[in-house]
Amino acid sequence: MTTAKLSEIADFLKNHDNYDILTHRYPDGDTLGSAFALCRILRNMGKRANVIVNGTLSRKMEFLKEALPELDFECETVVSVDVASAQLLGDLREKYEGRVNVSIDHHEMNTPFADMTYENPKAASNCENIFSLSKIMGVTLDKLTADCIYTGMCTDTGCFKFSNVTADTLRMAAELVDLGCDHARINREMCDTKSVARIKIEQQVLNSLTLHCDNKIAVVHTTMQMEKESGADDGDLDGIANISRQIEGVYIGVTVKEKEEKTFRVSLRTNHGVNAAEICRQFGGGGHAAAAGCTLYGSLEDVKQKVVAACEKALETEYCS
Amino acid sequence: MTTAKLSEIADFLKNHDNYDILTHRYPDGDTLGSAFALCRILRNMGKRANVIVNGTLSRKMEFLKEALPELDFECETVVSVDVASAQLLGDLREKYEGRVNVSIDHHEMNTPFADMTYENPKAASNCENIFSLSKIMGVTLDKLTADCIYTGMCTDTGCFKFSNVTADTLRMAAELVDLGCDHARINREMCDTKSVARIKIEQQVLNSLTLHCDNKIAVVHTTMQMEKESGADDGDLDGIANISRQIEGVYIGVTVKEKEEKTFRVSLRTNHGVNAAEICRQFGGGGHAAAAGCTLYGSLEDVKQKVVAACEKALETEYCS
Repeated sequence: MTTAKLSEIADFLKNHDNYDILTHRYPDGDTLGSAFALCRILRNMGKRANVIVNGTLSRKMEFLKEALPELDFECETVVSVDVASAQLLGDLREKYEGRVNVSIDHHEMNTPFADMTYENPKAASNCENIFSLSKIMGVTLDKLTADCIYTGMCTDTGCFKFSNVTADTLRMAAELVDLGCDHARINREMCDTKSVARIKIEQQVLNSLTLHCDNKIAVVHTTMQMEKESGADDGDLDGIANISRQIEGVYIGVTVKEKEEKTFRVSLRTNHGVNAAEICRQFGGGGHAAAAGCTLYGSLEDVKQKVVAACEKALETEYCS
Repeated sequence: MTTAKLSEIADFLKNHDNYDILTHRYPDGDTLGSAFALCRILRNMGKRANVIVNGTLSRKMEFLKEALPELDFECETVVSVDVASAQLLGDLREKYEGRVNVSIDHHEMNTPFADMTYENPKAASNCENIFSLSKIMGVTLDKLTADCIYTGMCTDTGCFKFSNVTADTLRMAAELVDLGCDHARINREMCDTKSVARIKIEQQVLNSLTLHCDNKIAVVHTTMQMEKESGADDGDLDGIANISRQIEGVYIGVTVKEKEEKTFRVSLRTNHGVNAAEICRQFGGGGHAAAAGCTLYGSLEDVKQKVVAACEKALETEYCS
């Protein structure tokens, strides 16, 4: 197992054929965008390649496989994209572990499991790596390949909003627009589309909103009952903890999630430099300065009261009026 | 009144001094970003310039005037930015109409009111024009000026999501990131922050949601009572009509807004090529293919029923199961 340069990966790919390209389990826009883009690049070079989707391809991702009918061949070469460890191969682990030739990834903590690993944590998305790879290989991308790469870039950056976006990210996106990629539609489908279940859970989350300490603390909750009634799955609950922090003037957004009876996972998201991890540590939790969590036990109201009291205390000295 | 090239505007600005820079009324991120950026550029050239904010500078926009104390001088030159007509000067019209030397704008329908007008509708935001101007003037932007320009670009493109984004837009954004602009914070404050009133009105809008025709039609409403109770102003209601269309699988998002007793403004937003204007024309309204409106009279329930029936009919032939 070696760490490889992108140029070495490019040489390897040119000299091999009959590819299975693996995504990580619960595949998202970046692993899928990477896989389908690489598949198109290899096929456009005259090679045979298939994407092995590691789970269900959600409806909004189906366009990625446009004009890519599955080919029938004996796999000789295995490439994984955006897969940070063998564990993330999930159900594919049994078949492919020990057989992965190349891993192309952008995670900081990649645990090598392939013969050659290219890892570039500076890339906001792994699709940036695929784009760079195409350049080294001297390949001009077609419109559909540009769509695949843009999809991964868009999903891993919150539609170019997050702090992982670099000037290079934006320059690559510009090139993809030049190549005719369907940027506005992809942005809308990836970032502005919500499932009915998500809408229902958001509605209930907003109904639970209480504001404290001159609107500097916002508290929302979800219960097992709410999740069940809305039909929300884990994907639908993704990012729910950010809702309370979005409110203008809020320093601390608190989200209390019922995990089981009398057990609550509390997520804190903070603005203006309030240390979320420090507050959560008081309850045996931890995390980052702006995003932390802890688990509390008791009734919903008791848990909220305890957390709000700790937040008020944290704000007291400097901010709270 | 003449149409000018950007290079002519650059020459004019170099050869004059003592600037009042005007924004449009109800100033948004683009007019303010343009004005404060231009003010910084002119001051950095050793000139005197003030921004005349045309209304209230909202709290989230206050950072734009950082390190720009108001200067005391007799105004000799007037520049307006992102102001498409004299009417949009609002309260400033009386003092400045007939005195505006230069107008820099990106609206398609600019009605000239200045001695020299530069109008570039290809620019997604007017801040793109200011950035291009700075290049022609040979000025290197400092970090705070880059922040101002990025703010306008971000607000007028829905954080780089809309179809008005071009490859040039993204390349300019990349340069601004290179200049150290605070992109992630600006994105968050412009696109991911909601007022308490907005949160309250969204909550009520989601509570009003009904789905029809196998979830292909989503209907929400706002009432005068809801607006009053939430404390929402026009800014808070901005974009409310997009909520119903965001739901996965929805072809037609309908938003019914009570304007006065028994009078409702109906906004349609459509996906997948459904012609919104055609549906609205049946009620004497109109608009674009994907965004149209009409006014209906009667009870809220009657109005909804009529609109849903028209939408169902439109979907019937092709889409509705």
